[in-house]
Amino acid sequence: MGEPYVTTQRLRFCDTDAIGHVNNAVYSVMCEAGRAELSLRCGLLAPEQGHTVVIARLELDFLREMTWPGEIRIETEVARIGNKSFNLRQRLWQAATLVARAHSVLAVLDQRTRRALPLTDAWRAALAPYATGGE
Amino acid sequence: MGEPYVTTQRLRFCDTDAIGHVNNAVYSVMCEAGRAELSLRCGLLAPEQGHTVVIARLELDFLREMTWPGEIRIETEVARIGNKSFNLRQRLWQAATLVARAHSVLAVLDQRTRRALPLTDAWRAALAPYATGGE
Amino acid sequence: MGEPYVTTQRLRFCDTDAIGHVNNAVYSVMCEAGRAELSLRCGLLAPEQGHTVVIARLELDFLREMTWPGEIRIETEVARIGNKSFNLRQRLWQAATLVARAHSVLAVLDQRTRRALPLTDAWRAALAPYATGGE
Amino acid sequence: MGEPYVTTQRLRFCDTDAIGHVNNAVYSVMCEAGRAELSLRCGLLAPEQGHTVVIARLELDFLREMTWPGEIRIETEVARIGNKSFNLRQRLWQAATLVARAHSVLAVLDQRTRRALPLTDAWRAALAPYATGGE
Repeated sequence: MGEPYVTTQRLRFCDTDAIGHVNNAVYSVMCEAGRAELSLRCGLLAPEQGHTVVIARLELDFLREMTWPGEIRIETEVARIGNKSFNLRQRLWQAATLVARAHSVLAVLDQRTRRALPLTDAWRAALAPYATGGE
Repeated sequence: MGEPYVTTQRLRFCDTDAIGHVNNAVYSVMCEAGRAELSLRCGLLAPEQGHTVVIARLELDFLREMTWPGEIRIETEVARIGNKSFNLRQRLWQAATLVARAHSVLAVLDQRTRRALPLTDAWRAALAPYATGGE
Repeated sequence: MGEPYVTTQRLRFCDTDAIGHVNNAVYSVMCEAGRAELSLRCGLLAPEQGHTVVIARLELDFLREMTWPGEIRIETEVARIGNKSFNLRQRLWQAATLVARAHSVLAVLDQRTRRALPLTDAWRAALAPYATGGE
Repeated sequence: MGEPYVTTQRLRFCDTDAIGHVNNAVYSVMCEAGRAELSLRCGLLAPEQGHTVVIARLELDFLREMTWPGEIRIETEVARIGNKSFNLRQRLWQAATLVARAHSVLAVLDQRTRRALPLTDAWRAALAPYATGGE
């Protein structure tokens, strides 16, 4: 039973919008920041080897406002590993407040052919420590 | 039977990322650009009257890459009008290619109390021309 | 005596910040949008040929607030063409209001060596129609 | 003789662009992140008291590429305190590499009148510890 990958992001003033809080598109940015670091660490995002990670679907529940200044804690865990895609589950926290939940479907893209690559055993093994079970 | 609200956005060079295409967070930005213009036009986004529109949930299907330079056509239609929330369905196009579909759940926020307001008859009437049926 | 290259950008809701106006970093984004389109058109930004355009210095005078919704008119003209760098002068307008002036120093970068390339006669000829004189 | 205010920002994948490095507009964002934190700390950025900080001029020298992943160290120091404006000098570092230098002119804006406020003794005293001399 794995553990989520955790990273943090300090909010930037330009992340706010005219409503006075952090803009909703920044929630997507935070999710991507977590996904990209995990993908890099697991060897799926490796442009010098000709492949990268792309997103096929995002579901995002906005639970609370984020406010500047502050730091966002991004938890990312593996929910499923399929043949040509995998699913991540994410939680965004500002201090002790859960501000968003996300679910995404991703694939490893061959940068030359622009097609999804089958997930190799090496990639599966690299993702496994972040698999926490459940969809 | 209504018609979608249509607006366009010219891509910016900084919308691209190291993969060489438009970054996935820009899809969220494009969806918001359409939602915000429609919300302003229908009188739901009206800070000077003390209320604005916030998003509760976003579902986004990434169908194709967007590439710079280019222009994105954003179609936004009303899928449902409830008591305290409403749903929008969106499509993003680059030229003749459908690049994404989105579904969102929104509410009108009282800026002082930070709570959702019931949807008035005036707001329902303003949204109606963009309602195209179906969930 | 040339003419400026003109392009436009529709503001996005997320371009605003908590002050209620368009964030100052968006002025840089607008300037880049104009520079990148001109560089592409003149053949200086051509990744498939191994070179791109990079900025060495930016001077930006913020004259007025930009406010959403609206469209920004970006005027870009060539102020100087040197051996390994060139200078652009830019003006940003929202409707009839001049909102910013910018001056930038740019170079064509060899993507492999990461070094500046001498400006060829072909590039000089392509930039010439946008040269309006003066520094 | 003061000390610079220091803050850090972790790069986000979406900060990159199609050239493969961090987009030049992100340099402006990093500078603003430092300025805004300092302005908040010194009481100049205080929307609940009716005033905020705005930028009048930015000079930015791009010295080196920033690359994802990584963290940017932002040093901000006070170069001048005038009657109605003040100047900041900034340096951006990625690890041991100085990637940019910036100089900015700022003012405190009365949010109601949209005009610059004279710099009070309290604000001068708050800025003083970050004044390092020189223009």
